[in-house]
Amino acid sequence: MLEKVDLSRKLGKKEYRQAVKELGAKIGDLQRRQREAEIPVMVVFEGWEGAGKGAQMNQLILPLDPRGFRVQNVTDSFTSDPFYPPMYPFWNAIPPAGRMSIYNRSWYRKAIDSWREPNEGNRGLERKLEEIRSFERQLADGGYLLIKLFLHIDRSEQKKRLQRLKSDGSKGVRGQDELNAYKNYDSILPVLEEVIRETDRAYAPWTIVEAHDRRFATVKVLSVVARALENRLNQPKVEAAKEPVVLSELEEAVTTPTVLSKVDLSLEPEDNYKKEMASLQRKIRRMEYTLYRKRRPMVLAFEGWDAAGKGGCIKRLTEEMDPRGYEVIPVGAPNDFEKRHHYLWRFWQDFPKAGHVAIFDRTWYGRVLVERVEGYCSPLDWRRAYSEINDMEKQWHDSGAIVMKFWLQIDKDEQLRRFQSREETPEKNWKITDEDWRNREKWDLYEKAVEEMLWRTSTPYAPWTIVEANSKAYGRLKVLRTVLERGEEALEGR
Amino acid sequence: MLEKVDLSRKLGKKEYRQAVKELGAKIGDLQRRQREAEIPVMVVFEGWEGAGKGAQMNQLILPLDPRGFRVQNVTDSFTSDPFYPPMYPFWNAIPPAGRMSIYNRSWYRKAIDSWREPNEGNRGLERKLEEIRSFERQLADGGYLLIKLFLHIDRSEQKKRLQRLKSDGSKGVRGQDELNAYKNYDSILPVLEEVIRETDRAYAPWTIVEAHDRRFATVKVLSVVARALENRLNQPKVEAAKEPVVLSELEEAVTTPTVLSKVDLSLEPEDNYKKEMASLQRKIRRMEYTLYRKRRPMVLAFEGWDAAGKGGCIKRLTEEMDPRGYEVIPVGAPNDFEKRHHYLWRFWQDFPKAGHVAIFDRTWYGRVLVERVEGYCSPLDWRRAYSEINDMEKQWHDSGAIVMKFWLQIDKDEQLRRFQSREETPEKNWKITDEDWRNREKWDLYEKAVEEMLWRTSTPYAPWTIVEANSKAYGRLKVLRTVLERGEEALEGR
Repeated sequence: MLEKVDLSRKLGKKEYRQAVKELGAKIGDLQRRQREAEIPVMVVFEGWEGAGKGAQMNQLILPLDPRGFRVQNVTDSFTSDPFYPPMYPFWNAIPPAGRMSIYNRSWYRKAIDSWREPNEGNRGLERKLEEIRSFERQLADGGYLLIKLFLHIDRSEQKKRLQRLKSDGSKGVRGQDELNAYKNYDSILPVLEEVIRETDRAYAPWTIVEAHDRRFATVKVLSVVARALENRLNQPKVEAAKEPVVLSELEEAVTTPTVLSKVDLSLEPEDNYKKEMASLQRKIRRMEYTLYRKRRPMVLAFEGWDAAGKGGCIKRLTEEMDPRGYEVIPVGAPNDFEKRHHYLWRFWQDFPKAGHVAIFDRTWYGRVLVERVEGYCSPLDWRRAYSEINDMEKQWHDSGAIVMKFWLQIDKDEQLRRFQSREETPEKNWKITDEDWRNREKWDLYEKAVEEMLWRTSTPYAPWTIVEANSKAYGRLKVLRTVLERGEEALEGR
Repeated sequence: MLEKVDLSRKLGKKEYRQAVKELGAKIGDLQRRQREAEIPVMVVFEGWEGAGKGAQMNQLILPLDPRGFRVQNVTDSFTSDPFYPPMYPFWNAIPPAGRMSIYNRSWYRKAIDSWREPNEGNRGLERKLEEIRSFERQLADGGYLLIKLFLHIDRSEQKKRLQRLKSDGSKGVRGQDELNAYKNYDSILPVLEEVIRETDRAYAPWTIVEAHDRRFATVKVLSVVARALENRLNQPKVEAAKEPVVLSELEEAVTTPTVLSKVDLSLEPEDNYKKEMASLQRKIRRMEYTLYRKRRPMVLAFEGWDAAGKGGCIKRLTEEMDPRGYEVIPVGAPNDFEKRHHYLWRFWQDFPKAGHVAIFDRTWYGRVLVERVEGYCSPLDWRRAYSEINDMEKQWHDSGAIVMKFWLQIDKDEQLRRFQSREETPEKNWKITDEDWRNREKWDLYEKAVEEMLWRTSTPYAPWTIVEANSKAYGRLKVLRTVLERGEEALEGR
C-alpha cells in the first residue's frame, strides 16, 4: 500500500506561502465554528521517525486559538504504564466537547511497536487492533471527529535525515534507538501496513502525507484538517428519533426478560451473622494484600433500587479493609464537565491502579437505567451501550482486572417500608428525597431496563450477582462472600 | 446469561387466543407497510433441538401475505458446501427490498456447531464470529432489518421432549444425533453463550424466547417481530447529506493520492511478443488444471479507463483456457432486481466454485468509482465501502481463493486516439457511446476516485496490479505474467 505513494511530490515556495495563508485563515474560522457547535476533535500525528511530525504539528497549531486545543505528547511512559489497561491513558486524554486534542504519536504507538515482538505472534497485534477499533468506533458514535495523519518517508530519506541529525548534533530529544530507526525500516513496514489497513474505517479514515517535501506536507495536513472540519460542520443534524412504540400490556409483559422474578426475597441469614461477617471481613482484608502483591486491580460495581442498601453493603465490605488499598466512588448525575465528554470517560478515569480496589456506588450502567428511562439519551444511544460496556469490561478483564457487579434486589413493598422509615426517623431523613418518590412511580419502567441490562451484560469476564436484599443481613453476607470467593478464584487463576 | 432466564413463564389459553388474534392483525398490517417502504427484513430462528422452531415459525407465517416472505431452511448441506466460502450461501439468500426472509437455523449454525471442534481452539470460533458481525453490520448499514430469535429450553425439558418423540415415533426428520442432542447440552451451552454475547449488537440484537410454554413463546415471537417492524417504520428518514465541500484547486491536488503519476506509460514489450504470449497462455492453461485439482477458486478483477483494453486483455488471457474452468462476468449497471439488494450481493452470487476462475470485466469497485462520481450513492455509502470490500475479499482469501485485481492505466491522449479510431472504424463503432464521451469529461473526478481506491484497497490478500496499457501488447503481457506468477506462488503456498 505505502509503496504506491508518490513521494516525489513538491510545492514551490510562492504557491506554498499563498496556500498556508489561505488555509490558516480558513482553519481559524473553522475552529471557531467547531467550538460553537461543541464538536470534540482528535487529530493524530503518526509517522516514521524523522518524518517531521513535530514541525507539521506546529504548522497546524499556528492558526489555532490556543484556548481551543491541547497537544498530547504520547511518550514511552505514557503508553507503557504497567499499572493500567492499554487504553486507559487515551480514554483519560479525550477532549471535551468543542475542544481539539492533537496527538504527537497516539494509541497506535504500541500497535506499531509490536514489530519488536514477533514471538508474540499475530495474536497480540490483532487484539491491539481490535481495542483500537472499539475505542475509535465508540468515540465516533459518541460524536467525536477523528482525523488521522501518517507522515510517510522512504528508508533512504529516513537514513539521510537521521544521519544528518547525528552529525550536526541537532538530534533533539532523540536517543540512540531513534537515530538508528532506519535500520529497522523494513521490519516495521509490514506491521505498519497491517495497522493502517485494519484501522482505516469510514468513521476514522487514515490520510497518508507524503513528507519528503515539507512544504507539500504542510499544505496537505492543513487541507485535510480543514476539509474534515468543514465536512463535519456541514453534516445534517440527525432528526430526533420518534417516541418508542407503545406496546399493549401483554406484549410488554412477554417481551420483558424476567430474571428478577426468580429471586427469592424471603431469604434470611443463619444465626451466626456476626461471627460470619467478622470472619469474611478479615479474609477480605487478607485478599486485599494479595491483590496488592500480585498487582491485580479489582472493580466492584454496585447497582440496585433506591434504599436497597448499597451503602450498607459497601460499609460492611470496607470496614476492615486497608484504606490505602481501595477507593469508594459515589456516582451521581454527571457534572457539566463530565457531560462534555463521552459517557464512559469518567469511569475510565476512576479505573483502579493495579493492586487496588475501586468500589463504585452506582456505575456506568446509569446509561441503560436512568438515562434510558428518563430519556436523557436516545434509544440508539442506550441500545448501543450494552456492547460498548461489554467491550470496556472485557478490556479491563483482559488487562488483568477482576470485575464483579452486584444488583441489590428488593421488592416494592420493602422499598415503601424503608422510605417511610427514613421519613419518620430524623437522622435518616436526609436519605430520602422527592426524587426517590418520583423514581418509585416509574418502578415498572426501571424494572424493564434492569432486566434487559442483567441479561445483556452478564458475561463470564464481568458477571452480575443478584443479591436478595429484603433482608439486609442476608444481602451483606452474600456480597462479601461473593467478593471473597470469586476474588480468590481469580487470584489463583493467574 | 441463559441461566438467568425464567423458563417458568406461561400464558393461559384465553389470553393467548386474544393476543394471537390482535398481533396477527397488527403484523399483517405492518407487513404491508414494510413492503411499501421497501424495507428488506431477515428473521432468524435459532434454538435448542426440540425447542419448537418449526412450530413458532409457522405461527409467524400465518398472518403474513405469502407473496411477501420466503422461508429458508438452513440444512447441513446448505452450510457445509466445501466449494464455497462460509458466508457465500447466506449472501446469496438475502431478501430483496420489501421482502422478508425467515431462516430456520441460519449463519449461526456453524458457529454454534463449533462446540464439536474443541481442538481447533478458540481461534476458529472467533473468526466465524468476526465474519458474522461483518455480514450483519454490512446488511444493517445497507438498510436491512435483522430480527434474531433464540428459542430457549433447559436440558431436562429437552430430554423429555426428545425422548417423547422417540417413543411415540413422531420424530419428524430427526436423525439419531438430533434425538440424542440433550446429551451434549452442557457442552454446547458455553459456546452458545459466547456466540450470542459476541453477536448481540444494537444493529442486530438477540431476543431470547422462553420456550417451555408454547403459547408464551408464540406471543413473544409475534410481539418482538411486530415491535421491530413498527420501530423501523417509525424511524425518521436520514436527511440527505449536503454537497461535499468544494476545495480550492491546490487543496484538491495535494489531498488526492497520486499513485498513478508514477506509472510509466511509455513501456513497450520486447520483440518476442508473440512467442512469449503463446508460452504464457500454455502455462496458464496448465495452471487452470492445477487450480481445479487443488480445488482453489481464483478471482480476477479488471478495472480501467474506458478503452483501456480490458476486453483485449481478457481475450488473450482466456484464449487457451479450458472453457469449463472459467467464466467471464461482464458487469454493467445493476438491473432493477439487483438494485433491490445490497450492492455486494450480485458479486457474491458470481463467486467461483472451488477449482474455477471468475474473471470480472468491471467489478464491485463500481461503488467507489462510478457510483461515487455520479452521486448514485451517498458519500457515507462509498466511504464505508472501502472496508466492506476489504472484508469481503479477505473472507474470500481466507476460504482459499486467489484474488487479483488489475487497473488498466492509459493517459487522456491515448484514450482520445482510441475513441476517435473507434468512431472512424465501422466494425469498432459499437464500442463507443455518448456515455464514454461524458465519462471522459469527468476524467479528473474519476482519477481522484481511482487513486483513493488503489491505496485504500490494496491489500496483501487481494493486491492491485497497475497495468501500463498505452501499449496494448505490453499491458497484455503484464496481465498474463502477473496472473501466472502470483497464481503459481499462491498454489505453492498451500
